[in-house]
Amino acid sequence: MKTLPAPMSAREFDELFQKVRNWGRWGPDDERGTLNYITPAHVRAAATLVRSGRSVSLSLPINTVAGPDNPRPAVHYMVQTYDVKSDIGEPQFALDYLASEFHGDCHTHIDALCHIAYKGKLYNGKLATSVVGSQGPTSMDITAYAHGIIGRGVLLDIPRLRGAKWLEPGEAVTREELEATEKAQGVRLGEGDILVFRTGHHRRRLELGPWSCEYGGEGKAGLHPTAMLLLHERKVAAFLPDGDGETVPSNVEGVAYPIHTLQIAAMGMAAADSLQFEELVKVCEEERRWEFMVVIAPLRLPRGTGSLFNPIAVF
Amino acid sequence: MKTLPAPMSAREFDELFQKVRNWGRWGPDDERGTLNYITPAHVRAAATLVRSGRSVSLSLPINTVAGPDNPRPAVHYMVQTYDVKSDIGEPQFALDYLASEFHGDCHTHIDALCHIAYKGKLYNGKLATSVVGSQGPTSMDITAYAHGIIGRGVLLDIPRLRGAKWLEPGEAVTREELEATEKAQGVRLGEGDILVFRTGHHRRRLELGPWSCEYGGEGKAGLHPTAMLLLHERKVAAFLPDGDGETVPSNVEGVAYPIHTLQIAAMGMAAADSLQFEELVKVCEEERRWEFMVVIAPLRLPRGTGSLFNPIAVF
Amino acid sequence: MKTLPAPMSAREFDELFQKVRNWGRWGPDDERGTLNYITPAHVRAAATLVRSGRSVSLSLPINTVAGPDNPRPAVHYMVQTYDVKSDIGEPQFALDYLASEFHGDCHTHIDALCHIAYKGKLYNGKLATSVVGSQGPTSMDITAYAHGIIGRGVLLDIPRLRGAKWLEPGEAVTREELEATEKAQGVRLGEGDILVFRTGHHRRRLELGPWSCEYGGEGKAGLHPTAMLLLHERKVAAFLPDGDGETVPSNVEGVAYPIHTLQIAAMGMAAADSLQFEELVKVCEEERRWEFMVVIAPLRLPRGTGSLFNPIAVF
Amino acid sequence: MKTLPAPMSAREFDELFQKVRNWGRWGPDDERGTLNYITPAHVRAAATLVRSGRSVSLSLPINTVAGPDNPRPAVHYMVQTYDVKSDIGEPQFALDYLASEFHGDCHTHIDALCHIAYKGKLYNGKLATSVVGSQGPTSMDITAYAHGIIGRGVLLDIPRLRGAKWLEPGEAVTREELEATEKAQGVRLGEGDILVFRTGHHRRRLELGPWSCEYGGEGKAGLHPTAMLLLHERKVAAFLPDGDGETVPSNVEGVAYPIHTLQIAAMGMAAADSLQFEELVKVCEEERRWEFMVVIAPLRLPRGTGSLFNPIAVF
Repeated sequence: MKTLPAPMSAREFDELFQKVRNWGRWGPDDERGTLNYITPAHVRAAATLVRSGRSVSLSLPINTVAGPDNPRPAVHYMVQTYDVKSDIGEPQFALDYLASEFHGDCHTHIDALCHIAYKGKLYNGKLATSVVGSQGPTSMDITAYAHGIIGRGVLLDIPRLRGAKWLEPGEAVTREELEATEKAQGVRLGEGDILVFRTGHHRRRLELGPWSCEYGGEGKAGLHPTAMLLLHERKVAAFLPDGDGETVPSNVEGVAYPIHTLQIAAMGMAAADSLQFEELVKVCEEERRWEFMVVIAPLRLPRGTGSLFNPIAVF
Repeated sequence: MKTLPAPMSAREFDELFQKVRNWGRWGPDDERGTLNYITPAHVRAAATLVRSGRSVSLSLPINTVAGPDNPRPAVHYMVQTYDVKSDIGEPQFALDYLASEFHGDCHTHIDALCHIAYKGKLYNGKLATSVVGSQGPTSMDITAYAHGIIGRGVLLDIPRLRGAKWLEPGEAVTREELEATEKAQGVRLGEGDILVFRTGHHRRRLELGPWSCEYGGEGKAGLHPTAMLLLHERKVAAFLPDGDGETVPSNVEGVAYPIHTLQIAAMGMAAADSLQFEELVKVCEEERRWEFMVVIAPLRLPRGTGSLFNPIAVF
Repeated sequence: MKTLPAPMSAREFDELFQKVRNWGRWGPDDERGTLNYITPAHVRAAATLVRSGRSVSLSLPINTVAGPDNPRPAVHYMVQTYDVKSDIGEPQFALDYLASEFHGDCHTHIDALCHIAYKGKLYNGKLATSVVGSQGPTSMDITAYAHGIIGRGVLLDIPRLRGAKWLEPGEAVTREELEATEKAQGVRLGEGDILVFRTGHHRRRLELGPWSCEYGGEGKAGLHPTAMLLLHERKVAAFLPDGDGETVPSNVEGVAYPIHTLQIAAMGMAAADSLQFEELVKVCEEERRWEFMVVIAPLRLPRGTGSLFNPIAVF
Repeated sequence: MKTLPAPMSAREFDELFQKVRNWGRWGPDDERGTLNYITPAHVRAAATLVRSGRSVSLSLPINTVAGPDNPRPAVHYMVQTYDVKSDIGEPQFALDYLASEFHGDCHTHIDALCHIAYKGKLYNGKLATSVVGSQGPTSMDITAYAHGIIGRGVLLDIPRLRGAKWLEPGEAVTREELEATEKAQGVRLGEGDILVFRTGHHRRRLELGPWSCEYGGEGKAGLHPTAMLLLHERKVAAFLPDGDGETVPSNVEGVAYPIHTLQIAAMGMAAADSLQFEELVKVCEEERRWEFMVVIAPLRLPRGTGSLFNPIAVF
């Protein structure tokens, strides 16, 4: 089953942008956006989901191999190994070095609210060029999430609904299909939840090998922009996709990445890219539940537009 | 009050090493070490500590400024800012780059079990040079912790016990002082716990500025090696210090870093370095409790000897 | 005309290795190898070739774009631009950052003598594992060339001889063809000369786009191993190729890169990789000469196995 | 003897800026600035200075150690050593990685013309913010010097004139002292020459250790701004100093780095920083001459604001 992407005009997109826009909702200088939906009660409730004590990484291994979807591979080198004797005595140390330009399709990372501008404006209407200069952002950087994000994660596994291994590049998931998935799994997205959205992107990569998922390449499967209305109504706090949520090519005239635009610039949502759920789905099936506690702990990087991270689901 | 460090001979240290050694305890190829102490029941119990829903970072901000304790500053650059228009339409993106040699005294990081060798041997008796080559470790790398570490954190705040702002460089905390701190705070370290050990290192840095805490410099405050017996008996699973747990100069003849040696090489303990608890202590005082859930999510870095990370305490 | 590569057995290769081997020729601890052929008289003579005063780079632009022949792209970021005002007054500065793993097929670089081991031995018979540890080489690093290499460059332009734009991947140039090229161009390689060897590699890349020139890919054009006898007899001091001199796949059983092996490990030759001569050939044709002064100035990098560089031809 | 720095008002500095300004002199889009002074005849003449065939590096070794004058140390790691066997046969390779933010007081580098803006303008009056964006400069980058700079180098050794080992931080060299040095050494700076300007900065560092040579530190010795009139009148093409030519603190009200401002923004001069002449002065004394051929070969880095380099003097 291939979802036909309904094309959207620029004007329709701007109307949608207005509808889901949270500018000013939590004050003019808010830096937490939809994380404001997560109350202490939500955190407590999320903790009650810890029953079997199992935990699962939602991160890809850091990838140092260039490829069609990894034009900026991480670099990782040993700094010192055990051929080096210390002149002050035992012990000896092995050390390493990691460098990464982490945005893109191959590194599991979270975006800061300063990462995306639509028509020159960031979340809350801030002028993009005023916030981000050559020394990095002066506000809405990734340290806004420094103390972690803890909440209820809800997996919506679209290939499971479809009875497919994965969605094909270019396919778009609608609001209706999200709701059908909720029903099939017996879960319902609610206020302050963390949506874990699976298209099977990484499963496809494991089986078919890497492909270029950008414009000019094969593209990727993601959400249809109108699905964002559901996330807005339900007051979803954060978004963790395999792929990055985007359908490429997009369904919107003149907007190459409408999902990031709506989530980050309009809604102020904590959004991440390029996770993998191949371990998660096994645990969900074994546990027969699609809700769990999620803990997100981005590196505490002043002026970061995002961060490599390793989100953890706890059952 | 200055604890007089009781010097320890090389022979005494080797006896201590034998006493706390967990080699073979969980099989010859175990890569989880003392994390084996954390059972599902411990994880569940840790989750029940989530009551107020507050969370606190235990990480320093990533530090790009060279200094006496930061000879290898992280580098962080903008890759792209909002002067770049996309030729495929909206939105625009701000991107950055981070590189780090993360071991050392200024970057909050966790160590993998391959990071330390004593007399040529790693945890479980593995030959250090066989495990770690120029392409990095072939086992006991940081991906052994990929699925996160979740447990009960117990803060032992030594300056609080002493009525001091911080411990001075060179001071060593004994087993007896740890036990006195437990009593004063009404907590008791138990099996599978994560010891959060505070010397006030970062408080001192905030007030007095950075100093060289290595050999040849002023040194640092930490544990006395015999204190490791307590951690061993109590079956502590992980260790999160400000500073790095070491007293510099050390109290052991010929062993410059005895704490890392015992924790990592002998015990197989998940050990971290260079955290900060200045935000944590405020919350502990407000909550009037020194136990909380801790979530540790190292980057999923194959062949890493460790990882930058942002440990989170949840109350 | 396609040169049929005559296959060479492992035994034949070892005999060739012995024949061209300069181990001990300039003493057991020599680090200059065939640069010893360049006498002050040769430098003086090279300087007399400067007549028109034109100079030409033999370097590729530094390449930050990943591709089939560039799996480890250089990274280049702005550190600061003119949005940053100094608080100590004028002027303002723009700054940048460059990082590179420079060996490979896309970065113009020179190799140090420690870069290649054959059967565990470096040039002069040094044990490879004794010279190069995790902290880099303790001798024969690129600083052996710190004071520059100045000599007579002689271009041998094989595609010109063949009347082709370039050699195809897999084609091997024999000693006979080098001699035919000398004759056609009216030049003769002599003692202390710098051989500038053109296969048209970069011309092919400009016209056809990048390809994988390694094993498992399309390969590359280069020298036949026996051609090294000519370089040895003529006492050539240095080697500057487009491509890297290697024919891939190689003509030698069990030796993937025989040219590097002979040049660096056996002969101690200053050898470079991945230059481009597209600007050079135009000047040569205009000047009607294929000899010129060459200046090689590697970065002064202690413990470097090589260096990015920009070799200059002066006419 | 300490040269008393004559303070200069902002107005006087602007008059000086006008006097030495070469904007428009070689056309509105010129990117070579004072290199236009170097004619083919100058290159030929420089080559005739090659008589003994000796060559000398004017570069510091690349410095990976943080210190008061090296807040951004280069990083250098081994990528692979001889523990790695190839699965396609001999030979084996040792590889490394170098990363550097090369501007500053400890890395020998050359500046591109886009590196400095005075009152928002670059050389030739270009608007700084228009030329340099987050993706680097669109003109006047270091590739303007891609084909190398070859000319006559003239060493003016100020400590030699003064009978001192070095100049002390804060001391400024006047036009008169440059002329006295010319006389003492029997040389005269002329059109198209490369001025090699020695304050003994690196000699001082070798003997006394590193110091902070920036504002807030001890400062450095350099030129007095009025000395730039001599360079302008004599049509000097390029400037190679130990230190960076600047006196810190500067002699100009409101202008922290007047020498760079005049050289680069006003004159369009090829200017470099942080060379060392300790090897050069020995050769000059032995050869009894202070003129030689200089070859400058910056890395061919598109959009670079400068480059690490290894300038070579040939006698």
